[in-house]
Amino acid sequence: MIEFDFATYTNQFINPDEFNRYNSQLIDVKQLFDPSRDMTGWYDLATLFAKDLITDIINTANYIKNNCDVFLIIGIGGSYLGSRAIIEALKPYFSDNQPNIYYLGTSLSSDYYHDLINRIKDKQIIVNVISKSGSTLETNIAYSLIMDLMHQKYSNEELKNRIIITTDKEKGKLRQDVNQYSYKSFIIPNNIGGRYSVFTPAGLLPLAVANIDLNKLYLGAQKANADLTNQIRYAIIRKIMFNNGKIVEAYVTYEPKLAFFLEWLKQLYGESLGKENKGILPISFINTTDLHSLGQFIQEGNKILFETVFNIKNSHYNIHIDQYNKTLNELNNIATTAVSKAHQHGGVLNNVINIESLNEETIGYLMQFFMISCVISAHLDNVNPFDQNGVEEYKKIINSLLQGINS
Amino acid sequence: MIEFDFATYTNQFINPDEFNRYNSQLIDVKQLFDPSRDMTGWYDLATLFAKDLITDIINTANYIKNNCDVFLIIGIGGSYLGSRAIIEALKPYFSDNQPNIYYLGTSLSSDYYHDLINRIKDKQIIVNVISKSGSTLETNIAYSLIMDLMHQKYSNEELKNRIIITTDKEKGKLRQDVNQYSYKSFIIPNNIGGRYSVFTPAGLLPLAVANIDLNKLYLGAQKANADLTNQIRYAIIRKIMFNNGKIVEAYVTYEPKLAFFLEWLKQLYGESLGKENKGILPISFINTTDLHSLGQFIQEGNKILFETVFNIKNSHYNIHIDQYNKTLNELNNIATTAVSKAHQHGGVLNNVINIESLNEETIGYLMQFFMISCVISAHLDNVNPFDQNGVEEYKKIINSLLQGINS
Repeated sequence: MIEFDFATYTNQFINPDEFNRYNSQLIDVKQLFDPSRDMTGWYDLATLFAKDLITDIINTANYIKNNCDVFLIIGIGGSYLGSRAIIEALKPYFSDNQPNIYYLGTSLSSDYYHDLINRIKDKQIIVNVISKSGSTLETNIAYSLIMDLMHQKYSNEELKNRIIITTDKEKGKLRQDVNQYSYKSFIIPNNIGGRYSVFTPAGLLPLAVANIDLNKLYLGAQKANADLTNQIRYAIIRKIMFNNGKIVEAYVTYEPKLAFFLEWLKQLYGESLGKENKGILPISFINTTDLHSLGQFIQEGNKILFETVFNIKNSHYNIHIDQYNKTLNELNNIATTAVSKAHQHGGVLNNVINIESLNEETIGYLMQFFMISCVISAHLDNVNPFDQNGVEEYKKIINSLLQGINS
Repeated sequence: MIEFDFATYTNQFINPDEFNRYNSQLIDVKQLFDPSRDMTGWYDLATLFAKDLITDIINTANYIKNNCDVFLIIGIGGSYLGSRAIIEALKPYFSDNQPNIYYLGTSLSSDYYHDLINRIKDKQIIVNVISKSGSTLETNIAYSLIMDLMHQKYSNEELKNRIIITTDKEKGKLRQDVNQYSYKSFIIPNNIGGRYSVFTPAGLLPLAVANIDLNKLYLGAQKANADLTNQIRYAIIRKIMFNNGKIVEAYVTYEPKLAFFLEWLKQLYGESLGKENKGILPISFINTTDLHSLGQFIQEGNKILFETVFNIKNSHYNIHIDQYNKTLNELNNIATTAVSKAHQHGGVLNNVINIESLNEETIGYLMQFFMISCVISAHLDNVNPFDQNGVEEYKKIINSLLQGINS
């Protein structure tokens, strides 16, 4: 299903003694995910995918699909990146989901809100507001703008069927609204942080609306829990790269559908490990287009980065290119391999991850794989993978500035 | 129109003596753009925007607008990023241009080609193929796939009105096709490289089709030629940052419409300066969404980066947010300023560029500004800003691999 072609590419970069030294530190790695530890709820997939909860999510998704033209997802960061990553990876290009899905709360652009509201105002709308804390600035602004529209369109009684809140079980302004207005709600468990929440209702409800098969996601993710060998190897390779001055990791795809999956990875690794003046800066390359933009830098520029490449072996379609007597997908695979080799020769380590084909099971596997491996990386770096005080600082600054305005 | 708020933010980071030392090296900076120098054709805006050429472009654009539903732009890297950057920056969200514009040749994704051809096959189509060399792999594959479709739909005679080639005046396979099949064509001057070609027909024809006012672009770009003070300052700041171990520059926007403008900048700086094991790695942040992903790393992680922030002062729309008694755009400006200050306090230099509003004149100015400043940076780094041997290496590897397959 997925092959980690690390060995082929890493020998020239990784000292076996250094590798083994780290490996011996990770004998008890499973204990990092023990339920007794804080914020490890995302590892317990059986609880996340409990039958009653999944039934509730599927039923709600069916109601949504039957009762609106437009499904609005309001959330930022971990509240939307996971589900959007999977939806974009698995849906066709140019397809309009039925219902159409739009994302809000991801910026403060006036143009975006103006143009979006203009586009949807005459449609039947259902809204899913997602914020664990219930106090995210961008989410609250989007929520209040959309509620203005919703109140114009629908009665308070009807809104009970059209507003769905995904938030903490007890705390925060969004939970208050659920209690006050009898909105439908889902819970983000308090032992799961935003960037690890893709398999909570924060991710699963939007995914179900977009007809993603949740059971196959679960089966894929379970496989990543079952064997941690490659997660450990990946974490150690990252650590050794960092020790050698490679302070930027580029996640690389040759299938533009994976762009949001790479955005999800950037948040996961940036927020989990970028602290105490440590961390590898995660960036993304969408090839081949970025080869014609940053390829020059990678090949001949400052040697500060290494790459982790997602190579999809099989495509859904066979498009024959006569002049090369190959399918387009074969050419894409050849380009991927050739570029990895060229970069490797240029002194840039490439971790190649070969994915048999892009589907629920493989992407479910990959997400769980990288969440697990990220926690192992944090263990090697001796940082807490579950806090984000730097983001809290930004939130505090903005909020105090806005309090000042308001008072 | 545009204010460079460098002084306010840089004092804590820039040693005045170091600044003045570099400044004194740049007294004759205008000679870098002298017509006698190789590859400086892009600086001569009067020639690029010559009346006859613009008339031909506008007439061709009008023909395209009146004779198709779908306008396909086939090109990669510098052949499409500049025009796409301007079109995305200036058109409304969710708007379908008339004709619809689609980009091809930017990846080797089978899914993309399958889904795109499915979507357009019954429409009236006009194609613009853009490649200076005429030998770009991705462009040629897209061109051949689309020509299969075009030959099914149209006679050879009709194709003369539906295929437009933008390439070198004399050389390459595309120019041969122009000569052989009597296609309409435009010239990319041989003294202008791909990433500096936005104001050649490579950029201007797609822009005219998208109803971008070329004259206002020209007026903006001219202003950037007229005074080089801030271009020099920006280049010196980058140099000093690099000397201080800041090896990543993040281009930052709070208006997602600028995403492709940042991609264009990444190519310009990555390809022009990423060589001889030198260069600052250019990346982009689309805020506020990326604050909830990489904000943690910037604030508290490894201190390897500095930021250049594009702050748009005025929006097209005033959306009032009751709870803060401010417009949404005012809140976006407050967020921009607050985050810049927070990052600055966290030890991350922020170059803030205040843009009165987003329009043809300001974006024309910015593009010319950054092309000029990039060449000054190359002068300080003692590298050639106009070659890209690393990309040629990738092209060579792929082509030799494909020759092997073919033979």
